[in-house]
Amino acid sequence: MNTNKIQVFKKELLNLHFYDQGQFFISLDSTGRKKMTKLLSPKEMGDMFDTLPDEEQDTQDFLQEMEPEYAANMLSEMYNDNAADILEHLDDKVSEVYLDLMPERDANKIRRLMHYGVDTAGGIMTTDMISLKPDTTIMDAIAKIKRDADLAETVNYLYVTNYERTLIGVISLREILVAPADALVQDVMTEKVISVHPEIDQSDVAQTIRDYGFLAVPVIDSQERLIGMVTVDDIIEVIDDEAQSDYSGLAGVNVDDVSEMPLTATMKRLPWLITLLFLGMLTATLINHFDVLLNEASILAVFISLITGTAGNAGTQSLAVAVRRLALSDDEQPSMMKMIISEVITGLLIGILTGVTVMVLVGLWKQNFILGAVIGLSMATAIWVANMAGSLIPLGMDKLGFDPAVASGPFISTLSDLTSVLIYFNIASLLMSSFL
Amino acid sequence: MNTNKIQVFKKELLNLHFYDQGQFFISLDSTGRKKMTKLLSPKEMGDMFDTLPDEEQDTQDFLQEMEPEYAANMLSEMYNDNAADILEHLDDKVSEVYLDLMPERDANKIRRLMHYGVDTAGGIMTTDMISLKPDTTIMDAIAKIKRDADLAETVNYLYVTNYERTLIGVISLREILVAPADALVQDVMTEKVISVHPEIDQSDVAQTIRDYGFLAVPVIDSQERLIGMVTVDDIIEVIDDEAQSDYSGLAGVNVDDVSEMPLTATMKRLPWLITLLFLGMLTATLINHFDVLLNEASILAVFISLITGTAGNAGTQSLAVAVRRLALSDDEQPSMMKMIISEVITGLLIGILTGVTVMVLVGLWKQNFILGAVIGLSMATAIWVANMAGSLIPLGMDKLGFDPAVASGPFISTLSDLTSVLIYFNIASLLMSSFL
Repeated sequence: MNTNKIQVFKKELLNLHFYDQGQFFISLDSTGRKKMTKLLSPKEMGDMFDTLPDEEQDTQDFLQEMEPEYAANMLSEMYNDNAADILEHLDDKVSEVYLDLMPERDANKIRRLMHYGVDTAGGIMTTDMISLKPDTTIMDAIAKIKRDADLAETVNYLYVTNYERTLIGVISLREILVAPADALVQDVMTEKVISVHPEIDQSDVAQTIRDYGFLAVPVIDSQERLIGMVTVDDIIEVIDDEAQSDYSGLAGVNVDDVSEMPLTATMKRLPWLITLLFLGMLTATLINHFDVLLNEASILAVFISLITGTAGNAGTQSLAVAVRRLALSDDEQPSMMKMIISEVITGLLIGILTGVTVMVLVGLWKQNFILGAVIGLSMATAIWVANMAGSLIPLGMDKLGFDPAVASGPFISTLSDLTSVLIYFNIASLLMSSFL
Repeated sequence: MNTNKIQVFKKELLNLHFYDQGQFFISLDSTGRKKMTKLLSPKEMGDMFDTLPDEEQDTQDFLQEMEPEYAANMLSEMYNDNAADILEHLDDKVSEVYLDLMPERDANKIRRLMHYGVDTAGGIMTTDMISLKPDTTIMDAIAKIKRDADLAETVNYLYVTNYERTLIGVISLREILVAPADALVQDVMTEKVISVHPEIDQSDVAQTIRDYGFLAVPVIDSQERLIGMVTVDDIIEVIDDEAQSDYSGLAGVNVDDVSEMPLTATMKRLPWLITLLFLGMLTATLINHFDVLLNEASILAVFISLITGTAGNAGTQSLAVAVRRLALSDDEQPSMMKMIISEVITGLLIGILTGVTVMVLVGLWKQNFILGAVIGLSMATAIWVANMAGSLIPLGMDKLGFDPAVASGPFISTLSDLTSVLIYFNIASLLMSSFL
């Protein structure tokens, strides 16, 4: 391309939305991306990078394709929460290289953000924002916003701090626009500000923003000083990630990246399957242990999959409900004792009702109500145990500090196969003389 | 309470955020709610109602506790997308009563919104917004915003339409604030506007808002006339609802409302369990059909749950991936043919690798590699079939226009029990003479 054509191309490219620029950039090969990097300034590239997913390997690879100086400049031009997120996913040594190449002030801001846990309010907040003083006039506030708007991630809310940097109010851009020019910020602002602390979990921040319908929420330290803000676009990512992780847990496969390459898909799904295969082998040896019983009463084999399958289904249901409950913020969560009691009773009710149904079905089919009772009783017990496992295992994991979504559906149903078989054959051998 | 105390209480109440007012209102009993209704104007009550979940039975019940005239007034004071959502969940006759009691203009706006499908852009958009003309000066635009800000759901974006009401640009409140007072809107606005049509699915609107990091997106009709806008707060609900519905589907239980009342929980989980019990009975009769084989080779019973369980796990994994893929917007989705081919190969790979593993395990354990081969071959085939079912059933449902998330995990694993047993016993009876 000659210089003229290149300039036309560049103009067209920059005319696109940042997101579309990013999608185009992603679609290029390494050579294409390098050419594009030459064409754009670090600031232009930074605006585009702000739209790329921070946590993905690709984004980090793109960064490492650039000259370190260029990459560092670009990072310092990005919103600092996004820059910190990208750097957090790199090796400490590598991220230090970039931070050292940056203007000191930007590097320090980013370092401060990287210091918070990735899943906390501090980890997703930005410090690119404008705050106002209470005794500023609306006219002066407008002048300040005009001057600094480019540096802030959003100006839809402006937080008001006193001279100790304590958060004392909030004013929306709409309110500023509507207020008389000579009014003071403190006369127009709302004094009751809902805020969060940096160490709280990102899902609780999401809940707050959602409940109140906010576009952002301020983050304050233990002395109530304003240290950052979390904006609604980061919250959308959080809600989606949390849902994704609950869902992946339930399925026993990570669905974050639904690649259609069979080999990648196989490698992602196989480890769990093989692990659970060993648990399944345990169930097989257990059945094998009852081979004498099975030889005498081969009719028992007919109901193995009915009992294990139904108990597994019940366990999966109670697991799903338990994981969902634990995902709610603490103040919406019923107490632990209440949850356990409720699950004990629910499991009993479901077990008894399903057990009676299957007792009647088997009794009628085989014209043997004692056999029906054995199957019904086994199923009721197996369902109750599976329900307990499905709700208590995630609850226990949560209390121990693990993500309850890690207790997967397949794990619970494979575990429930084992307990179901144990229950079934023990009940059957106890009552065998009566139904044969 | 005497009048004075009531006034103090009212003032304190109105000092709270609308969401907190709503939470307080919900916490009251019917008598308390009626008292509160007497205290607040329809406008004050409407602001609070805007924060309540539109689709919940409770919200509709609260409405019907009020005098119809008061309720109608309140609905007309609410954002019209929220009012339409509430009315859509009522009987047509009941909602007509309220609409008839409202000012004609508000009723017509709400009626127009109710006309769109609840899951579409039209169904979640608002028409409470301010649009500008291109030849307006920034100064006049500010005056208009000041005058009408109260009527609009958001003024962070202002859409620009020509005199045919065609959407021709967008300008943010931030840009208006920064622009010189005598500039024209058309000189400041962005001409490339990303917009959506009212009939597109709400999840695609969500994807657009998310990708571009917008706070709102305009809705245009087939003649490109501006008819509404979808704001980010509605999108958060959409993302959460869709995730919830995928998750509920996978679990085979609706987790929308995680009530801790055992009876409610039982009633929610039992229908699916009992339905699947009948499918499980079919599997039992199938095994029963092979009773001669089982009598001769009771060792076969030992591996029933291993084969059905593992195939069920594989089916659940592929179901989860398929549902996730189908949830992606069309342009991110791989083609149907690609998905099918990929799943066929993935299923084969997983089947073969798991089958070989189990063949070795069983062969070593039972010192009988022909038995091992029977189990391995059965498992490989059963896994492959379960994988196909897990991916093709949701794909087929999607093509037929059903929500693919309705194909639940428990359904796929119970169905896979049936096919697994069928495969297992057929392979076993074919090869029986060689392993006994």
